[in-house]
Amino acid sequence: MRLVVIGGDAAGMSAASQARKRLGRDELEIVAFERGHFTSYSACGIPYWIGGAVAERDKLVARTPQQHREAGIDVRLRHEVVGIDLDRREVVAHDLDGGGEVREGFDHLVYATGASPVTPEWARIPAAGIFGVQTLDDGSAIHDWLSARPSPRRAVVIGGGYIGVEMAEAMKQRGLEVTLLEKSPEPMGKTVDPDVGALVRKAIGEQGIEVVTNADVEHIETGDGRVRAVVTPSGTLPADIVVLGLGVRANSSLAADSGLPVGVTGGVRTDRRMRVVDADGVWAAGDCVETHHLLTGGPVHVPLGTHANKQGRVAGINIGGGYATFPGVIGTAVTKVCELEVARTGLTEKEARAAGYAFVTAAVDSTSRAGYYPGASLMTIKLIAERRTGTLLGAQIVGRTEAAKRIDALAVAVWNRMTVEEMTALDLSYAPPFAPVWDPVLIAARKATDAVHASM
Amino acid sequence: MRLVVIGGDAAGMSAASQARKRLGRDELEIVAFERGHFTSYSACGIPYWIGGAVAERDKLVARTPQQHREAGIDVRLRHEVVGIDLDRREVVAHDLDGGGEVREGFDHLVYATGASPVTPEWARIPAAGIFGVQTLDDGSAIHDWLSARPSPRRAVVIGGGYIGVEMAEAMKQRGLEVTLLEKSPEPMGKTVDPDVGALVRKAIGEQGIEVVTNADVEHIETGDGRVRAVVTPSGTLPADIVVLGLGVRANSSLAADSGLPVGVTGGVRTDRRMRVVDADGVWAAGDCVETHHLLTGGPVHVPLGTHANKQGRVAGINIGGGYATFPGVIGTAVTKVCELEVARTGLTEKEARAAGYAFVTAAVDSTSRAGYYPGASLMTIKLIAERRTGTLLGAQIVGRTEAAKRIDALAVAVWNRMTVEEMTALDLSYAPPFAPVWDPVLIAARKATDAVHASM
Repeated sequence: MRLVVIGGDAAGMSAASQARKRLGRDELEIVAFERGHFTSYSACGIPYWIGGAVAERDKLVARTPQQHREAGIDVRLRHEVVGIDLDRREVVAHDLDGGGEVREGFDHLVYATGASPVTPEWARIPAAGIFGVQTLDDGSAIHDWLSARPSPRRAVVIGGGYIGVEMAEAMKQRGLEVTLLEKSPEPMGKTVDPDVGALVRKAIGEQGIEVVTNADVEHIETGDGRVRAVVTPSGTLPADIVVLGLGVRANSSLAADSGLPVGVTGGVRTDRRMRVVDADGVWAAGDCVETHHLLTGGPVHVPLGTHANKQGRVAGINIGGGYATFPGVIGTAVTKVCELEVARTGLTEKEARAAGYAFVTAAVDSTSRAGYYPGASLMTIKLIAERRTGTLLGAQIVGRTEAAKRIDALAVAVWNRMTVEEMTALDLSYAPPFAPVWDPVLIAARKATDAVHASM
Repeated sequence: MRLVVIGGDAAGMSAASQARKRLGRDELEIVAFERGHFTSYSACGIPYWIGGAVAERDKLVARTPQQHREAGIDVRLRHEVVGIDLDRREVVAHDLDGGGEVREGFDHLVYATGASPVTPEWARIPAAGIFGVQTLDDGSAIHDWLSARPSPRRAVVIGGGYIGVEMAEAMKQRGLEVTLLEKSPEPMGKTVDPDVGALVRKAIGEQGIEVVTNADVEHIETGDGRVRAVVTPSGTLPADIVVLGLGVRANSSLAADSGLPVGVTGGVRTDRRMRVVDADGVWAAGDCVETHHLLTGGPVHVPLGTHANKQGRVAGINIGGGYATFPGVIGTAVTKVCELEVARTGLTEKEARAAGYAFVTAAVDSTSRAGYYPGASLMTIKLIAERRTGTLLGAQIVGRTEAAKRIDALAVAVWNRMTVEEMTALDLSYAPPFAPVWDPVLIAARKATDAVHASM
């Protein structure tokens, strides 16, 4: 039996590894095509390598092609799969370096092509110095560009989502002058509510990064084949490097061309075992798939390494003859922006509204440790609860230290459809070095409970 | 209408404050008797004040008697209630300083007398320098003793529960030579399993505290009315101060003498609104009450500030005409021992066995942040899951930094009766500064799931 994997990062290689664990080399042959130079790396770590917190690129690689090969997975780097023939059960790949075409038959196929940065018309120009940030090859290209002499001095990051703010900070740490352009009134507008986004904007600004919100891009100026400036209605920003942080789209066109189902979010549709809908023996996982939001019940596309790993593992277990499922997501995310920790789970106000919920909100300020204990730092927790039922719909946290990971307790509460009133009784851990006697999560639940009562 | 509160710390004063919030001074008169000198303080903070991390005693006081009085609560310090007459609906208090007796009628009574350190026969001797640690008056006495000249040099802490280890560390920080005696094979034997306790022992030892386990105390040697040494079967330990860390017992004898029901754990029995069973208008809260373990269904006595605050608040809301409940506990606790963070929730192996569960365990080592991210530190997470059903019964965490608060996500999982297999899909937060791509909690859930499968 042969398994072919398209895409050598988290999802694809997790699937391959799990299948390999369950089926020996005599039972299952595994071939993995990867169009880039790397396997099983942490794309999320790229900004920290660019910024210098992580010293070497190779630290981001969890498992090299050679390690996979030793484990019995035939990794073919720089091979781009360009066709899937579901009837003949084979894929066609281009050898990007050697040239030529490879055909490989499969019994099982894992489609794990990832996602690509959204690139508007104005960014699709033949000029060097414009980068998206998705693959480790992308990261390497940026790293090379920043390390070239004379080194770039001015950076413009377009898009204030979490990749945008992380990259802005990374380049600031490298000593560049950085401007962050964001279309919405506040950065991280897709991640957190504007009131929380305002705190993010302030923190970024304090690091000396210029933040321009409500910003449109008209076009990019070039010269000598290089980017020179970003032109907006309110002015021209000189730039030696432009980084796109406008989000990513699922790489699903190959799937669509092959007759595999693609959902409204642009991601490949799978069932909960990560089998592609109506395609036996074909599996998909990672940033290229559509998943299910456990609160709204609707389809969502949430490209995150943690989901990719889980989905890949689930696909691999099932391919290997086991049983595992990926039931869906609730939108948990966390990031560190300059000294600020920002986390969310469930729905933002905007998302809750779009899903048709009527809700109340409650925000509280509290501290990470008992107020009298050294190192106590401020945090804000905001909860969104359904009107009347009080079901916790979402939570957002902003703080300086020891704040953001509290989102996990809230995520488990969302996952279990707890009401904010039930949550006031939760037996959370308390000791002065770790929390005030009322943990901020409990204080927020109390305030949200009052708001729910008032909404009756 | 008059509310009388017995006990001026967390539980009693939370009840008083909540009742006051809901009923004005013309509707409800509130009298609070407190036999000590303080109200609404953090007993949990005492070791940090003794050790010097908290500079002043008054930092531990959340609300002074004067502040309560300004809020319309008639606080009577140094008044010890010695009798409750349920038929005449009045209490009798001794004025410990002024002398004499006070009688006060009540419509509602809150019984919040707290707990007292377990004091074995051998410790009940007329010698100065032997201390329990429960009230802020206890803490002050220790502080005074340690500050006296010539200052004590050698401390023996008897009992390696969390108060014992915190006090041992505090006195070490003050420069004393400290020996910790623990009856069990490992410290924190009531809190964590021996394998986790062994890690605690190591950390304490590394701080230069001598830890003697399997240790019995035969008697205490005294001289000139002061403690001189602790005598054990294996030797005599010179001591200028002896601190008892043998746990606490609910102060329920006054309740029992008054005909109020006391449970098998020694705590006063209440319903979920914190009304004393079969005693209308009489409420109880805090370290003096018995509560309900949500997993075993059995009665437990868990004296912790966080429960005391919640229970007091619930009592106060109900007294004030509202509706609130305290459904019970799941045994969550956290402490910092030297540089070690230790946390637990649910049941330990011993507790699970006592409750009749058959279970599997899984322990994993992982890191607080992505392995490549600066500051990643090691932690161990141990899960206990019911055989076959896979229901999460308990969790323990030991780590250096950013470890212990992960117990809250596990506590919410226990609270909601999640299985470890469901937990493998949990949407927990991930970004390199906060977690590996598989959070340690998820890795532990995966390993526990395998163990459950193997137990089928």
